[in-house]
Amino acid sequence: MNSPNVAPVVGMVGAGQLARMTQQAAIALGVELRVLANAPDESASRVITQTVLGDYRNLDDLRAFADGCDAVTFDHEHVPGGHIRVLAEAGVAVRPGADALIHAQDKAVMRERLGAIGAPCPAWARVDSVSAVEEFAGENGWPVVLKAVRGGYDGRGVWVVESAGEAAQVLKNGVELIAEAFVPFERELAVLVARSPHGQGVSYPVVETVQEDGICVEVIAPAPDLDAEDAAQAQRIALTIAAELGVTGLLAVEMFQTKTGLVVNELAMRPHNSGHWTIEGARTSQFEQHLRAVLDLPLGSPAMTAPVVVMANLLGGPDPDIFSRYEHVLAHDPGIKLHFYGKEVRPGRKIGHVTALGTDLDDVRARARHAVTCLRGPV
Amino acid sequence: MNSPNVAPVVGMVGAGQLARMTQQAAIALGVELRVLANAPDESASRVITQTVLGDYRNLDDLRAFADGCDAVTFDHEHVPGGHIRVLAEAGVAVRPGADALIHAQDKAVMRERLGAIGAPCPAWARVDSVSAVEEFAGENGWPVVLKAVRGGYDGRGVWVVESAGEAAQVLKNGVELIAEAFVPFERELAVLVARSPHGQGVSYPVVETVQEDGICVEVIAPAPDLDAEDAAQAQRIALTIAAELGVTGLLAVEMFQTKTGLVVNELAMRPHNSGHWTIEGARTSQFEQHLRAVLDLPLGSPAMTAPVVVMANLLGGPDPDIFSRYEHVLAHDPGIKLHFYGKEVRPGRKIGHVTALGTDLDDVRARARHAVTCLRGPV
Repeated sequence: MNSPNVAPVVGMVGAGQLARMTQQAAIALGVELRVLANAPDESASRVITQTVLGDYRNLDDLRAFADGCDAVTFDHEHVPGGHIRVLAEAGVAVRPGADALIHAQDKAVMRERLGAIGAPCPAWARVDSVSAVEEFAGENGWPVVLKAVRGGYDGRGVWVVESAGEAAQVLKNGVELIAEAFVPFERELAVLVARSPHGQGVSYPVVETVQEDGICVEVIAPAPDLDAEDAAQAQRIALTIAAELGVTGLLAVEMFQTKTGLVVNELAMRPHNSGHWTIEGARTSQFEQHLRAVLDLPLGSPAMTAPVVVMANLLGGPDPDIFSRYEHVLAHDPGIKLHFYGKEVRPGRKIGHVTALGTDLDDVRARARHAVTCLRGPV
Repeated sequence: MNSPNVAPVVGMVGAGQLARMTQQAAIALGVELRVLANAPDESASRVITQTVLGDYRNLDDLRAFADGCDAVTFDHEHVPGGHIRVLAEAGVAVRPGADALIHAQDKAVMRERLGAIGAPCPAWARVDSVSAVEEFAGENGWPVVLKAVRGGYDGRGVWVVESAGEAAQVLKNGVELIAEAFVPFERELAVLVARSPHGQGVSYPVVETVQEDGICVEVIAPAPDLDAEDAAQAQRIALTIAAELGVTGLLAVEMFQTKTGLVVNELAMRPHNSGHWTIEGARTSQFEQHLRAVLDLPLGSPAMTAPVVVMANLLGGPDPDIFSRYEHVLAHDPGIKLHFYGKEVRPGRKIGHVTALGTDLDDVRARARHAVTCLRGPV
């Protein structure tokens, strides 16, 4: 493809819903979006003509995919750092680069680095035995949070253990682990920032994320009743991390709000579930922002388009006939915005989200919940 | 494609920028959008995997295209009515149907019908000779507006003639014509409405359209200083036309505002240039609304997302290197929204549009103009 006249080409490795929603922004900007997909019927490959089938773990596939791209970026964080370095050495603009991305791939490296730059973190240690966990608990108390150093997401790879016996069960998995002190948080917040290779940074308003069983079910923008100083502090932490780690593109920083201040929980370097509300709720969606950042274009306004925005994730229920429930939901609320990911419905799977916008928090939350409850169908 | 789980399929005949922007809405709704395109590098076929190459004038191509579609609709109004009738008789849900669409295809039929339902129209007559034009001018004065009965758009197919001699020149083209009395208008307005097969109707706010050389260059929403009664009257006219003509999908009604009231100028039955501002400027974009209407889903809220929205068309200039001018435009105004159509730049060709949103009309207009002026480049 390419040409008119001459469209920038962004290659995104992975073809999940993040790439799918990036395509909406790419269409407007006139950017040609290419995805490296496992199959032609993945969420994004359904709607992207420039779909290349291949394996993101295979360097030759990555090399061929990157050829002709003005920038290469990611829908997930699983591409091996060594491959990214080879691409970068060959002149590919990989954004974020391997030295930044490692902090979203390896929780031990992330904790070391955040400690070094003074970002607020829980006490933590590498642990490879029950006795190491017991020693950590001796200093920090039970429960202890065990996390897989690599590969976890949506609550997978995280275990809250109350005893040496429970820790022993987790250690049996044989994965590399860190232990973190359990943070008695009041609520969870997230800050989404973008940073361009130029060094321009932009922060979206701080949001509250509501989790159930380790999965984000609701995002409220802005975080209700967050005082201005805490909000500024949260944004400062996220922008500092982006700059110190050399992030290019988006960085989502998940935080705990505690009685004694903010604590950084996790990092993600890509469009993030906590930013889906920006599609309608911010002047520049996170997906457009990510494209602008990786192409080193000036970043867009993160201003909100309504006083209150609530995004609710739609998880699959046992009845896959999702479209039969469209009519009721759309008739009930002419202002509700639906987003379907083109994924087969499976119970508990994230298959879409809804966004409600308005002025009254209780009303907006109720509208978002009503929509996902109805769309999910009988339980 | 199809399945997840089970996505409605909408087929759009034509693959211009209207189909391209409809894809952005289809991605969110989980609707599978199919286009019948002339070539794989058209505006929409660049971004739609389910592109079928074929000729919209060929019934077999249309039949094959329609197979498996839950609804078939149009990016343009050039599909022969006879073909549409054959499809409908075969059970295809063609929206709008041939009996409605004829009013956007044939200006004589449109004028007859609008007269019959009492919509305000200029004096008009079919003319096939200079003497017929002279007779019409004798009753209604010069200048006379001659319009091709079929096939005109963007000012093509419309001639304002001041004399019998000028009329003779137009008649030499050999196309079927109507004459219309020249309307001494104060400004041009447009009303975009949607109507579903159920009969639900929705009207967007009345907008002012600014034309240069017969091409729309700017749309201002809402139309500045339009009094509430005129606005209601304009919406009433458009909704009445949609209902009386049995429109399914979108209907754009272009009107003249005159000292003595509103006069209907043109109809279009598809997403329309005067509605591009709705992508960011209304809670439901015209493209989403069109998909909802043709699928007979409940219609979405047409409420504005900002007090003032201005859309400016981007016409190509002599320098096609459009992306080199991105940086300045985005840096100048972090809130400006760009839309590129993936079309080769040619002088005067509509290759995109920009949208500015805000509270102050002069400021918002200036921002939109600045962006298109810069993007167009040296003249």
